Amino acid sequence: MRTIALSHGAGGSEHAELLRRVVLPALGIDDGAPLLDAAVLSELDGRPVLTTDGFVVQPLRFAGGSIGTLAFCGTVNDLAMLGARPLALTVGLVIEAGLDVALLRAVLCDLGALARQHGVRIVAGDTKVVERGKGDGVFVTTAGLGVLPPGRVAPHPSRIAVGDVVLVNGALGDHGAAIVHARAGRSDAAEVSSDAAPLHGLVEALYAAGVDVHCLRDPTRGGVAEALHGLAHDAGVTIALDEAALPVRPAVAATCELLGLDPLQLANEGKLLAFVPADDAAVALAALRSQPQGADAAIAGVVADGSPLPLVTLRTRLGGRRVVARPVGEQLPRIC
Amino acid sequence: MRTIALSHGAGGSEHAELLRRVVLPALGIDDGAPLLDAAVLSELDGRPVLTTDGFVVQPLRFAGGSIGTLAFCGTVNDLAMLGARPLALTVGLVIEAGLDVALLRAVLCDLGALARQHGVRIVAGDTKVVERGKGDGVFVTTAGLGVLPPGRVAPHPSRIAVGDVVLVNGALGDHGAAIVHARAGRSDAAEVSSDAAPLHGLVEALYAAGVDVHCLRDPTRGGVAEALHGLAHDAGVTIALDEAALPVRPAVAATCELLGLDPLQLANEGKLLAFVPADDAAVALAALRSQPQGADAAIAGVVADGSPLPLVTLRTRLGGRRVVARPVGEQLPRIC
Repeated sequence: MRTIALSHGAGGSEHAELLRRVVLPALGIDDGAPLLDAAVLSELDGRPVLTTDGFVVQPLRFAGGSIGTLAFCGTVNDLAMLGARPLALTVGLVIEAGLDVALLRAVLCDLGALARQHGVRIVAGDTKVVERGKGDGVFVTTAGLGVLPPGRVAPHPSRIAVGDVVLVNGALGDHGAAIVHARAGRSDAAEVSSDAAPLHGLVEALYAAGVDVHCLRDPTRGGVAEALHGLAHDAGVTIALDEAALPVRPAVAATCELLGLDPLQLANEGKLLAFVPADDAAVALAALRSQPQGADAAIAGVVADGSPLPLVTLRTRLGGRRVVARPVGEQLPRIC
Repeated sequence: MRTIALSHGAGGSEHAELLRRVVLPALGIDDGAPLLDAAVLSELDGRPVLTTDGFVVQPLRFAGGSIGTLAFCGTVNDLAMLGARPLALTVGLVIEAGLDVALLRAVLCDLGALARQHGVRIVAGDTKVVERGKGDGVFVTTAGLGVLPPGRVAPHPSRIAVGDVVLVNGALGDHGAAIVHARAGRSDAAEVSSDAAPLHGLVEALYAAGVDVHCLRDPTRGGVAEALHGLAHDAGVTIALDEAALPVRPAVAATCELLGLDPLQLANEGKLLAFVPADDAAVALAALRSQPQGADAAIAGVVADGSPLPLVTLRTRLGGRRVVARPVGEQLPRIC
């Protein structure tokens, strides 16, 4: 089996062979048990949290990860942004006939390895195959089940308050820049690598430090600009960023200058924005910095009154203040 | 907005407009609340059950339903086959640029209407757009969360026992035949219509009647032949079917004869196979027949010893006995 054929998608023996020989071993769930379409899990201690995320990134592999890396991190991070601990994943694949099996195996191995490393079980899956020219390699749709521990109030936009401090756990735009370089065929740009990473460890660190986390958001498609505009609108506030405090790697900044991109609009896959009370900001910053994913954490801005209009503003390095534009249309298609 | 553009898939304002104006109203979840990537649900009374299913059917609409109908029924049925009550769904869309918005709205309305009707909440979603020629209209990947009520033992292939009776809730092959007719452009074949339907009501009826349900399986891709071969192999038994007892509609039988298809290999989307102890068979049959989806329920066969080789056999109308072939390769691609 070197490439995927349409017959691998039918409900027959070739389909079973694809699962047994490729998909399940790569995901690390080849335990020989009967293949079921669903799984019964242990009772939860807390409220269930459910999410889904679809991935159509091109190319399928890039510096710092693959569509499999994104599928794990994106789903776990959606759970973490609600304060939930990730427990289980499901994996849905739509494969284009003709896909190289070695490439499929590689991206699923990325997903499976992260799941094992972080103790998240892959409990159910589905594999479909479509004709050549009706798909694009492989699309991955994951769903995630997490649990909100008893007594923990879920972070929510409605809890954002004037005076809150906005923290970010590291440099902005790495994932978007990595995709730009991958599409340009610049594999030599080793200094630009996707930041794809699961964020639930950072979130647990905030709670363990006793921080009253008001709201969390992972700035993926549309970047920090889109994430903060959505939150400013939902919460009816203005969010005032400080450009000098926003971490951006030199190589990413150079990529943006060259191509006319805005690092605030570039996708991130391992970053979170945390809204916390000003009194908790120092403790929160220390908690983030105590984790590998938060070594470069910074205070990105503050929440101000949103009247007459909720806005996102930026104090520039030159001391001026400008409105941060909300992304319109497609900056980089199929970034995740 | 008449057709989907690539910009509708970016994380910007056009993406938000697609969600607010099309996706959310069609799914019936346009409550004006902030769009979150995940949802916190109420605590479960029982063990969580998680599943996922992907849908790539062509055409997107057919007699008896659409890709939206299948997405609801397929996911709910995967939960029901483990004895779970469906609670919540997630919906992931991969849309091809150029898709007619009215068609997208129609198939999502099918999904949303079934969810409302059956009290299953759509709690999270994801929408991606790919270029023309990189997808095929829309692919839908759903995940489902259900609960196994306390005290209920989940049905499982390992519980199948020699002597068990196999029940089916109605006529076979309707969905596969409906897709065949839809592809041939025969919309006049009104007597052939997909059986797509949620099956959790039937499953609850079995438990309410006190039946000790050993195993449940929905014979989708690959039909009854594939489903029973998988179970015979997993349980190490032979399953002996009785052709005269298997319900097949005349129009479906005629379609199969004309095209050389086997109704045992045709997909169903509203059928279940239930393995129950012989002592419970009469009660189980009555329970199925008490429900609209089970009016034509029948005893399809029995479980026999699987040595030396697990098999699926069929006693033909002429009184002979033949081995039912396991589907190999692709009979009807993209049936669901």
